Amino acid sequence: MKHLLSTAAVAAMALVSSTAFAQFGSGSFGGNQGAPLPEGFVPMETTIFCSQYPAVNPKTREVLYSFKAGDAKRVTVTQEGTTYEFTKGNGGNWTCKTKPQTVGFHYYTINVDGCDVFDPGTDAYFGGNKKQSGIEIPESEEEGAYYHFNKNIAHGRVSRCQYWSDINGLERVCNVYTPAGYDKNPNKKYPVLYLMHGWGEDENGWTIQGRTANIMDGLIASGKAVPMIIVMDCGDLKTSPTVKNPRGNVTDIFVKELMPYINSEFRTLTDRENTAMAGLSRGGMQTWSTVTTNLDKFAWLGSFSGLFGINGSIESAHNGALKTAKTDPAKKLNLVFVSHGSDENPAQPKQITQQMKDYGLNAVWFESKGTAHEWLTWRRSLKEFAPLLFKK
Amino acid sequence: MKHLLSTAAVAAMALVSSTAFAQFGSGSFGGNQGAPLPEGFVPMETTIFCSQYPAVNPKTREVLYSFKAGDAKRVTVTQEGTTYEFTKGNGGNWTCKTKPQTVGFHYYTINVDGCDVFDPGTDAYFGGNKKQSGIEIPESEEEGAYYHFNKNIAHGRVSRCQYWSDINGLERVCNVYTPAGYDKNPNKKYPVLYLMHGWGEDENGWTIQGRTANIMDGLIASGKAVPMIIVMDCGDLKTSPTVKNPRGNVTDIFVKELMPYINSEFRTLTDRENTAMAGLSRGGMQTWSTVTTNLDKFAWLGSFSGLFGINGSIESAHNGALKTAKTDPAKKLNLVFVSHGSDENPAQPKQITQQMKDYGLNAVWFESKGTAHEWLTWRRSLKEFAPLLFKK
Repeated sequence: MKHLLSTAAVAAMALVSSTAFAQFGSGSFGGNQGAPLPEGFVPMETTIFCSQYPAVNPKTREVLYSFKAGDAKRVTVTQEGTTYEFTKGNGGNWTCKTKPQTVGFHYYTINVDGCDVFDPGTDAYFGGNKKQSGIEIPESEEEGAYYHFNKNIAHGRVSRCQYWSDINGLERVCNVYTPAGYDKNPNKKYPVLYLMHGWGEDENGWTIQGRTANIMDGLIASGKAVPMIIVMDCGDLKTSPTVKNPRGNVTDIFVKELMPYINSEFRTLTDRENTAMAGLSRGGMQTWSTVTTNLDKFAWLGSFSGLFGINGSIESAHNGALKTAKTDPAKKLNLVFVSHGSDENPAQPKQITQQMKDYGLNAVWFESKGTAHEWLTWRRSLKEFAPLLFKK
Repeated sequence: MKHLLSTAAVAAMALVSSTAFAQFGSGSFGGNQGAPLPEGFVPMETTIFCSQYPAVNPKTREVLYSFKAGDAKRVTVTQEGTTYEFTKGNGGNWTCKTKPQTVGFHYYTINVDGCDVFDPGTDAYFGGNKKQSGIEIPESEEEGAYYHFNKNIAHGRVSRCQYWSDINGLERVCNVYTPAGYDKNPNKKYPVLYLMHGWGEDENGWTIQGRTANIMDGLIASGKAVPMIIVMDCGDLKTSPTVKNPRGNVTDIFVKELMPYINSEFRTLTDRENTAMAGLSRGGMQTWSTVTTNLDKFAWLGSFSGLFGINGSIESAHNGALKTAKTDPAKKLNLVFVSHGSDENPAQPKQITQQMKDYGLNAVWFESKGTAHEWLTWRRSLKEFAPLLFKK
């Protein structure tokens, strides 16, 4: 395809002295600028390079959207279950101001005359099995500090790793967080947390929406959590042009393929006392399934917004695995961490967690105040969960 | 926000036995399936999990698009400079078949009644300073093998690194490829190639659209290229809610901040003989600017679709830097690699390359047959360029 840099633009660039080429900064070309921002509004963290919109008023938490929709009849945006109307302005620019929003990361959908569209002013995030528009409503500086980049501490990295899966029949991608100092200490081995995303998301959910690296960098730098490796794999069997209907299941991929791959590629402590698994929503369910059927491999379990009920008694649940996890020293669970947002019906999971505690398991309950089935619940869950790991 | 997993779906999931939760595979929920694919068509490599469209016929290279546009009056897709009309089908599904396409990666835009929209059936790629729809038209198996994942060889990884920039006033992200065996050889140091994307793209361009890891894994495994670290930074000064008008320039960021960061975080050979820089399009221009003003730091230069002219003679160009690069042993350029696609007016850069060669520089020309200002030109350029590096 013809690249978006036109011949005219190239010619214009060639006229400028070569040193100037190193100085291209913001706004030099293109971008979705929209109308000038009203006082109090700033582009969001998630707003894309060169774009002014979407914008937020950090004090009121109102959001301003702008979208080029020409002569459309109706433009709306749906967010947090509420649909807002856009009004048409000059040059086909439609704008919309929402009511105050709750903090954290939110997907949203713009609709033009009945057609769902993507907002080019923001970044795209994989959710609901497609790339979607998303925004980040700022918390107070203090509340949100734990998931922002802190320039005053040491930083880990997230590696994009491709590995082959015979079960899936193709290569898969997992993201792996290694803590600060991993490269500098070539003889040190680390415990591992396998951390799963939810339904409709992928291996990038925890890396991008979840801000795992920033959260863990802070917890480790402050001594609250021990340095650990975090593996963020994909919870789906993948399809491809040649692999349309993959067989097998993801638990088998985790246990038979992913874990050996991780143990061969990274310096891991491989015993169960140094291996944890956690996940959010469907990833929480996958964690229950995987850990309770592989108690010889995992000694720590986390379920974020992922405990939706339990069949029968605690003792009989998961084919008696929780009984084994309590009574068999070789298969003991050191921690069963359960969290939910206060706005996603936490009563039942809270009650089950108490039952597990009464039964004799080290069950820990965390409730995220004022959040629902959403990423802020899960960022906070990771912040509470990770410090409990790999300590006895 | 309410997560896309509805309460009803959660209830349905809770009814299934826990083991089944580990088995959620393709198509269990949602996805943009569209009508069944006609014979000969398969989902593309770039088509998203759970989606059938866009699809391609690998033999004819025709592309089939599907888009839910309800009662729109007109739906089109623009690709390779040609606009195609969709036809309306059942259930608001509009479909469109293109003429045969050229191979490689292409951005495209769907337009509904005058409004540019994003295709939820495909992944999103940063280009033109926004996330855009993109597709990958397959080459023949043999031609494209060098940029596909090869399960029979060892693999490097790409790390997402966040580093603080005083010049930019905020944290920046660069992607860093480390070759297979990097972790296993903690005393080995590696040469470094700084590899820049083009205008409107970002640090993910080479990682995702460019397939750098697959290309380099193959070149290194076959002994064609020496193992090296590749740094893929962003060629823009970034903006943020708090940094609206950053000062400074990217050459300063590269030389004063990025290079020291890379040398402290990775095991690099830091002398000029082991340091190269290359870039595509505007990134090629940034390479000319940075290398010619820092000949004490770089001994190898690559310019892919990024040589658009030269002021005056070779000897006087870049304030005499090419003369220095020829005559000063401490500032000698070991390689000046120039490439263009055959379909993007290669005559002038080819001629300038010949002039550099005649002048006495080790100037190498590569022309990508049948491609224009696009990613296939640049994948092929990297494949030709990397084997020439760090060998004398």
